[in-house]
Amino acid sequence: VKKSLVREFRKILGAQRCLDAPEDLYAYSHDCYARGKPELVLIPRTTQEVSAILRIAHREGVPVTPRGGGSSLCGATTPIRGGIVLATNQMDKILEVSQEDRLAVVEPGVVTLRLHQAVEAVGLFYPPDPASYAMSLIGGNVATNAGGPRCLKYGVTRDYLLGLEVVLADGEVLQTGSRAVKDVTGYDLTRLFCGSEGTLGVITRITVRLIPKPETKRTILTSLRTVEEASQMVSRIIGAGILPTTLEFMDQAYLQTVEELMHLGLPVEAGAMLLIEVDGFEEAVERQAGIVERFCKEHGALDVAVARTPQESDQLWKGRRMGTVALMRAAKLMISHDATVPASSIPELVAHTHEVALQADLKVVIIGHAGDGNMHPIFLLDPSRQGEMERFDKASRELFRFTVEKGGTLSGEHGIGLEKNPYLHLQVNEIGMRTMRAIKKALDPKGILNPGKFV
Amino acid sequence: VKKSLVREFRKILGAQRCLDAPEDLYAYSHDCYARGKPELVLIPRTTQEVSAILRIAHREGVPVTPRGGGSSLCGATTPIRGGIVLATNQMDKILEVSQEDRLAVVEPGVVTLRLHQAVEAVGLFYPPDPASYAMSLIGGNVATNAGGPRCLKYGVTRDYLLGLEVVLADGEVLQTGSRAVKDVTGYDLTRLFCGSEGTLGVITRITVRLIPKPETKRTILTSLRTVEEASQMVSRIIGAGILPTTLEFMDQAYLQTVEELMHLGLPVEAGAMLLIEVDGFEEAVERQAGIVERFCKEHGALDVAVARTPQESDQLWKGRRMGTVALMRAAKLMISHDATVPASSIPELVAHTHEVALQADLKVVIIGHAGDGNMHPIFLLDPSRQGEMERFDKASRELFRFTVEKGGTLSGEHGIGLEKNPYLHLQVNEIGMRTMRAIKKALDPKGILNPGKFV
Repeated sequence: VKKSLVREFRKILGAQRCLDAPEDLYAYSHDCYARGKPELVLIPRTTQEVSAILRIAHREGVPVTPRGGGSSLCGATTPIRGGIVLATNQMDKILEVSQEDRLAVVEPGVVTLRLHQAVEAVGLFYPPDPASYAMSLIGGNVATNAGGPRCLKYGVTRDYLLGLEVVLADGEVLQTGSRAVKDVTGYDLTRLFCGSEGTLGVITRITVRLIPKPETKRTILTSLRTVEEASQMVSRIIGAGILPTTLEFMDQAYLQTVEELMHLGLPVEAGAMLLIEVDGFEEAVERQAGIVERFCKEHGALDVAVARTPQESDQLWKGRRMGTVALMRAAKLMISHDATVPASSIPELVAHTHEVALQADLKVVIIGHAGDGNMHPIFLLDPSRQGEMERFDKASRELFRFTVEKGGTLSGEHGIGLEKNPYLHLQVNEIGMRTMRAIKKALDPKGILNPGKFV
Repeated sequence: VKKSLVREFRKILGAQRCLDAPEDLYAYSHDCYARGKPELVLIPRTTQEVSAILRIAHREGVPVTPRGGGSSLCGATTPIRGGIVLATNQMDKILEVSQEDRLAVVEPGVVTLRLHQAVEAVGLFYPPDPASYAMSLIGGNVATNAGGPRCLKYGVTRDYLLGLEVVLADGEVLQTGSRAVKDVTGYDLTRLFCGSEGTLGVITRITVRLIPKPETKRTILTSLRTVEEASQMVSRIIGAGILPTTLEFMDQAYLQTVEELMHLGLPVEAGAMLLIEVDGFEEAVERQAGIVERFCKEHGALDVAVARTPQESDQLWKGRRMGTVALMRAAKLMISHDATVPASSIPELVAHTHEVALQADLKVVIIGHAGDGNMHPIFLLDPSRQGEMERFDKASRELFRFTVEKGGTLSGEHGIGLEKNPYLHLQVNEIGMRTMRAIKKALDPKGILNPGKFV
């Protein structure tokens, strides 16, 4: 980025929002996976400013990496070709929450949690709840099609988008969708940008649909002797017509490792623990919780507890919520995959993951969203150990190969980013890559947007 | 299409599935909106055959219009540049219904109703239910992102797609998605093809996700004094946290016209009738029906009836189901729009539609899916009347302009096709059209797929 360009950007944004001091560049250089080396950080506040930035970047062929909350787990927002980091965190207005039309219009820099709170205050509900919701930005959620525990019942970010405003690579401003819940007018550009990880445009405004807030919920925690029994329990519950909001899985390695660190009283002898939430109308929720409890008792669960209040529920979530934080602190490096398989392949995936880790001399614990087959093998790594990262890469490749063989996917919700780019071809064949490249080229012919990702 | 080409296609498909007799061309020339003039009808049975057809068509630059059940209401599958109609109706196998993985894999020629029946037989549920489900093909449903009454609660066809096999314009075979419920690996090509009306590729295999079949339902029929009261009732119901499966609206003009034709005992003095269905667990459904019934009684409904058995429910649906059939028989030409607006704009849209029709000297009755603002003004036309079609076009343009002004869309579920192509620019501005054209060009550079549509 030439000095003259920096001056041009300063004229548009002012010196406060056009940063090139080393400490600023450092602060915006990374997400939760990797670090890059941006040359300039630009912090626009309006669509017009984003448009002006992209016009110049396009003219000069300067790379632009859009950035949300920086909570990507796969390096989706890491700038790997220098250039500009375009930070959206100051475009943070909730522009509208409409009870009547059951929608919200927000800027990309709104923290996901703020959106949850704003809509729940008027009796509405925005379901997607990525684990990072207290720091992730809604624009990043859209760019990565974020998921979360509640997605089993309610679907992912994609399923709540009505329309987007997107600044294209050349600075032109595109409007997609509308405020209508059903809209089949033209190609589904809304969902093309969703999950494209900033490689096709910069999202500057988002219209999301909302649903009525569920009346109540129950949380059920149960431990089972084996992973197979846990998997059978998942099938049994859904087979009974119950679609839980959340169906979290924790394996024995996770329980034992967390218990050692935290002393929470977790059942270390169990093969797996399931955390199940059902929500909806009081009567239906009570019956569903009753059915789940009965299934657990009838089919050999080691224990089962039902929470009926938010306080009791928090208690049951402790092992799941505090555990991952504890692991993050305990491990020198923690990398969580999110390979997703059809539900029937979960036991095989869990067994295969442990086998692969054992052979590679790696420590792994497994949690996951069992209802939708979205598992999170968490590798607890020590990069200072001889050959550790090479063995991790090899193990990862084998696990990705396995999930694709089972009809699954490399990534259920974290995205591709830097981390899984080398493995993309395992799932997307040459025709698929060609099609993706054709679309990228059609929308960003100079390849300035988040270069080095996807294609 | 040259004679030599016909011979080439005959070699691939045999004479039985390569048709050029006038009566065959006629049979495949139209959908429910318009008629075209194909030169050749090809009926492949395998992906390989589709691929071979497209390779040749691509080489020769011959137009190919993919065709499903021919039930499009907007001319989406009408061949307007001659060439080939590629009929998918003999690719009609249900390849798999997996209870464990809660998914089905089907060929595009499966009738929607057959899919409903096949999955419900094992306790699962495929929600999208376009009115034409007894004749529409699932491939056409995907190509048009079909909706239906149940979509208020359950979402549209797009929301149930896990993956597609698509033959691209040049005959290459693309696989999108996977068998996993959550999948963020690469651009969302699945949803790019969904709703693209056959302009980007020919869908040859579809993997849909399924959900547990709801335990029971209640049907509630109520008539209200005015459209405003009906609209308030819709807001009140959803405001109480109830998301009905279905929330059908019929206006006074509809009730009076159908009553005159059918003598069903419809409440002709009512300003609007609402048909409401709630489904789920017995206890919750019973309470929700009770709340709706109480709302109706407390807020001035002229009458309210609740059906608790399938037979009683069928009785309540009579006015809605038989009415549209009666209208179709009574009118010389019936054209149904599907303009969709945010929920709060429904009363204005209904009032404005009648005003515009009155000024244009046209007969219109209105039904619609009120919960999601997807209204169906049904114009009962007589093309032999002086200037009728010109006045209809003018009225349509004004209604499309109005829905877009209200933040809505030209089409909630029928699609664009021939009918709304002239109005597309009212919603999609020049940047939007440019983006759509760029994508079309990237995937179908010679423009052979369903030419003359969309872009």
